[in-house]
Amino acid sequence: MTTLTNRQYFLASRPSGEPTASNVPVRDVPVPEPAAGEVVLRNLYISLDPAIRGWMGDDPNYIEPIAIDDAVRSSVIGRVVKSNDPDYVVGDVAMTMGAWERYTTVQGVTLNKLDESVGIPLSAFLGALGPTGLTAYFGLLEVGKPRSGETVLVSAAAGAVGSVVGQIAKMQGCRVVGMAGTDDKCSWLKDELGFDAVINYKTCGDYGSAIRAACPDGVDVYFDNVGGEILDATLLCLNKFARVAVCGWISTYNIADAPGPRNLWQLVAESVTIQGFTVLDYLERFPEGIGQLVEWMMAGKLKHREEIVDGLDNVLPTFLRLFDGTNQGKLVIRLPEDGTAA
Amino acid sequence: MTTLTNRQYFLASRPSGEPTASNVPVRDVPVPEPAAGEVVLRNLYISLDPAIRGWMGDDPNYIEPIAIDDAVRSSVIGRVVKSNDPDYVVGDVAMTMGAWERYTTVQGVTLNKLDESVGIPLSAFLGALGPTGLTAYFGLLEVGKPRSGETVLVSAAAGAVGSVVGQIAKMQGCRVVGMAGTDDKCSWLKDELGFDAVINYKTCGDYGSAIRAACPDGVDVYFDNVGGEILDATLLCLNKFARVAVCGWISTYNIADAPGPRNLWQLVAESVTIQGFTVLDYLERFPEGIGQLVEWMMAGKLKHREEIVDGLDNVLPTFLRLFDGTNQGKLVIRLPEDGTAA
Repeated sequence: MTTLTNRQYFLASRPSGEPTASNVPVRDVPVPEPAAGEVVLRNLYISLDPAIRGWMGDDPNYIEPIAIDDAVRSSVIGRVVKSNDPDYVVGDVAMTMGAWERYTTVQGVTLNKLDESVGIPLSAFLGALGPTGLTAYFGLLEVGKPRSGETVLVSAAAGAVGSVVGQIAKMQGCRVVGMAGTDDKCSWLKDELGFDAVINYKTCGDYGSAIRAACPDGVDVYFDNVGGEILDATLLCLNKFARVAVCGWISTYNIADAPGPRNLWQLVAESVTIQGFTVLDYLERFPEGIGQLVEWMMAGKLKHREEIVDGLDNVLPTFLRLFDGTNQGKLVIRLPEDGTAA
Repeated sequence: MTTLTNRQYFLASRPSGEPTASNVPVRDVPVPEPAAGEVVLRNLYISLDPAIRGWMGDDPNYIEPIAIDDAVRSSVIGRVVKSNDPDYVVGDVAMTMGAWERYTTVQGVTLNKLDESVGIPLSAFLGALGPTGLTAYFGLLEVGKPRSGETVLVSAAAGAVGSVVGQIAKMQGCRVVGMAGTDDKCSWLKDELGFDAVINYKTCGDYGSAIRAACPDGVDVYFDNVGGEILDATLLCLNKFARVAVCGWISTYNIADAPGPRNLWQLVAESVTIQGFTVLDYLERFPEGIGQLVEWMMAGKLKHREEIVDGLDNVLPTFLRLFDGTNQGKLVIRLPEDGTAA
């Protein structure tokens, strides 16, 4: 039996602010033989998501923090190289919650098998057809509850979640306004995805004025990916009975002790609902969501953009690009199909 | 025709912090003859509510700010002394949105006629059977959505709204925990109103520990009357899918530039909904609400405590007692039935 070597990036200490290589160093460890029911995946794609930053801390969160000395948790797609689960054979491709590592060993029941033959690139199942697409789908429809004719504002609109939110909101008959941080991203939203208006938040000046100009009828649904100053400005632009769907607050993740929003009185002033959610709240409805997203994508109604970076050893610096906004859409690390470490 | 003299307390300038006599001075002005459709009430009771402090400012709010030079807006009950509306005759008693004044002149259509013969003290229609009772009724049932067996935490629980919230929550089969600022208030909640547990927030020490001890199964519904530090502590005690009904944030009203809550990440961590509301959102359902509240009160299931202070000239210092918590239940100013100024 070959003993495989697993290169993995693990959490040596909890970051304060931006995670560094000393918080997340690398090590090479042997891959254990799979126990009963277990499967070993050689990872092909590793998903990089802002949420991972939250799991590196130990504040109360929707899932357990990553334990110190554990590999950094993330969604992965891999090919089965060893199986001790009768439902999986070597060569199968599947998605699971794995880690920033070459090989992931998990119980077979946690895997979602993927069909390579349908002609959709596998990486899409980490993005628009996977956790981020489902986050957009359930967050917008179940939390934001947009109605035809309403105005939907989306922050981080060119991101993996935001870009899907905007496209679904358009299909609901809404006026859709996106905020993003480069002119290129804004053009993509407007010209390719059909957003009605866009705001480059890095150049627009006062957020409140920019939002009011782009949303002349006010904001009915705010899909919030960023928190911070943009949330505060948006609160003052909300219509009566508006809904704020809180997906994440990426602007605050690397700031220790970020201040709370100051304009929350708008909750009462406009009878607003602010609701937090995670995609895990809708676990039982994943098949419905994925089915719908795949249908839209096959019909050309759902576009996505992903940026694929090769090499496990690029994982940390690539992850940090989520926070400076230099990524273009869904950010994925690709590993070679052969057995090399990274 | 007698010309009546109206003593009124009016908004000369917007307060920063606690309103002073220079923000809210007094004046005597003639009462105009009622125009077509108008009625003149000699006020008998004036309602003092924390919300009035919000209306004195000019931040965006759910109703227009009180205009500078206008009498301070508040709910009143008065007896008709002049009528130019065929639906009202001199001697009728009615409630309306009036002001801190001896005589209120309004369109008859804005009045709600009250029946003195049913044996309920009139002042109750400003409290448990009026705006504050309706705020509790709709805020708890429609925003908090408590289910039998859940834990409901109420702040300012001995106040006009909170005390009704707690009693309705008990009727829904919930475990009810109240926070109040004196041992006397806490005893009243527990011994007279049947709250399951109480917290004296002025003596309990760390709020989080006190809430966790009083709510061993966590908090499913938080009916928030106070905001500030207690909201922040409660956020960390919320169960998955908890609801926070934001009625008001009295702890912040006299603080310029109050900081926002710091623990709002709990929205995402526990998929929490925070919803602001005002009783005006349920205007069409007032008859249902009042009918239910009256029925509960007649059946002895709804108790209330009110503190009645005599004399219009006590209105400002009495109002300020809402903010130091020295009031005992619903605070009402009573004016003499005769025609004296105050």
